[in-house]
Amino acid sequence: MSLLVSGTVALDSIKTPSGVRPRLLGGSASHFCMGASLFTDVALSGVIGKDFPKKYLKLFESKNINLDSLIRKDGKTFHWNGEYKKGDLNNALTKATELGVLEGFVPNIAEAHRRIPNVFLANDDPEIQKKVLESMKQPRFVGLDSMNLWIEHKKKSLVNLIKRVDLFVANDAEARALSKEDNLIKAAKALRKLGPKMIVIKKGEHGVLFYSDSLMFSYSAYPVEEVVDPTGAGDTFASGLMGYLSRTKTFNHKALKQALCYATVLASFNVEGFGVARISKVTMAEIDKRKKKFIKFISYQ
Amino acid sequence: MSLLVSGTVALDSIKTPSGVRPRLLGGSASHFCMGASLFTDVALSGVIGKDFPKKYLKLFESKNINLDSLIRKDGKTFHWNGEYKKGDLNNALTKATELGVLEGFVPNIAEAHRRIPNVFLANDDPEIQKKVLESMKQPRFVGLDSMNLWIEHKKKSLVNLIKRVDLFVANDAEARALSKEDNLIKAAKALRKLGPKMIVIKKGEHGVLFYSDSLMFSYSAYPVEEVVDPTGAGDTFASGLMGYLSRTKTFNHKALKQALCYATVLASFNVEGFGVARISKVTMAEIDKRKKKFIKFISYQ
Repeated sequence: MSLLVSGTVALDSIKTPSGVRPRLLGGSASHFCMGASLFTDVALSGVIGKDFPKKYLKLFESKNINLDSLIRKDGKTFHWNGEYKKGDLNNALTKATELGVLEGFVPNIAEAHRRIPNVFLANDDPEIQKKVLESMKQPRFVGLDSMNLWIEHKKKSLVNLIKRVDLFVANDAEARALSKEDNLIKAAKALRKLGPKMIVIKKGEHGVLFYSDSLMFSYSAYPVEEVVDPTGAGDTFASGLMGYLSRTKTFNHKALKQALCYATVLASFNVEGFGVARISKVTMAEIDKRKKKFIKFISYQ
Repeated sequence: MSLLVSGTVALDSIKTPSGVRPRLLGGSASHFCMGASLFTDVALSGVIGKDFPKKYLKLFESKNINLDSLIRKDGKTFHWNGEYKKGDLNNALTKATELGVLEGFVPNIAEAHRRIPNVFLANDDPEIQKKVLESMKQPRFVGLDSMNLWIEHKKKSLVNLIKRVDLFVANDAEARALSKEDNLIKAAKALRKLGPKMIVIKKGEHGVLFYSDSLMFSYSAYPVEEVVDPTGAGDTFASGLMGYLSRTKTFNHKALKQALCYATVLASFNVEGFGVARISKVTMAEIDKRKKKFIKFISYQ
């Protein structure tokens, strides 16, 4: 196993201009797993309830995702009910959240998973993320994602956790909120000062900014015409980045640039279907074909 | 002379988080001239009043900008009073506009200017833009810019004019408003259907999207940390594009990609000073140096 992800495993009821879907497989860790498993062996840490559909467990297993650290508890699986309005697909409107088994959840990483070298702490309560990180034995590379909720309500925990990771991934609004800088270059530099060697700022339809002491670059997003459901685009993006780096075990400039190409392409597939419908069916051949198109799309030559 | 620009010549009183400046040289054509004159000989069509400062005329002349089509009228020069708030530098708030000599202005292109092969109709009333275009004798390449005001109030005139140009330049909000498409790729395609072979959508700090039947590409913006004054960034952007194409007289894919690199770099200099303060002093050596940095910044290799 080369990559462990911890985060939420959810049932998502989603409304977008393209339609309505109840109780889809969702959550930060689920979306991440779907993308990362295209590149490497993945272990999943999280929690599900009694109502979690068997078909989704089978889907995880069909992707060789190891579920030994996925806790099954009495109660209901975390449920998110959200909507995206026409013309504002970048903003999810939360209509309801039912925490269910997520309430009071304490992660429990399987012994066999504790020496996995690459770790991604997908969006979750920073207290849970911290516990996962502390279960791991000398991880080589740790990535972290968060969200505005935690930046607002658990900033101290989050800032303490950020110090201990190699890579911090945030969307533009989160980067601005946490750094208190409007300018994204300044925001990236301020986040770098919090600890992580690498900062990735996701700008949705506008692409991505990468920042480290020795490398700064930016890509546009892949030009998707029909965004069906943006849920999990950020998690899928991170999965391409972490999945590729975990597979190559290389962190030089070339690898980072390649990794963010894959991240962009994976996210573009994710938004073309509801939930994980599209990303769970995509092949590496389709990904590499789209990556070629993407490189042409951003190339100055 | 290889490039004629028509548009507004204004005095701008500007407030940004970096300071306040009264009666700066402004207007779409002025900003355009400053950038384009770095690449080629430029003729300027527009109107000024008796109050137009001599120092600004001298500045134009120092850039070899031919003023034979610049009309001097009794009355006051067009005056714009605007502000940009901290954290929202993409949006200009208009506090006052005094049309002055712009009211009822009829352009009058000098006889010697009517055979200039490249024409840029910088942002202005589409009726004025149309008159300028009709004065020109078989121009080889015509570019057009506009703004939300005209999309709202003179849409018919604008759409009729768009049919007759080769290149249409718009910012993302304008592209969405005119095409009635939220998705920018769809917006670009819809604008293409209005007539122009080439569509350029400027996304401010997020870069640019180019669209034609045979080529689509996108760049991030140059990473500027200190935006002093965004006024005229779009005009300066267009000036790099038109200036480079007018100089090379080539419109193949390579030239278009180069032109949009220059456009990006010129706009990045423009926003680093109030009004034309920075762009009027920049050298081609500085531009080429920054262009190299920019190409590295957007490169996937």
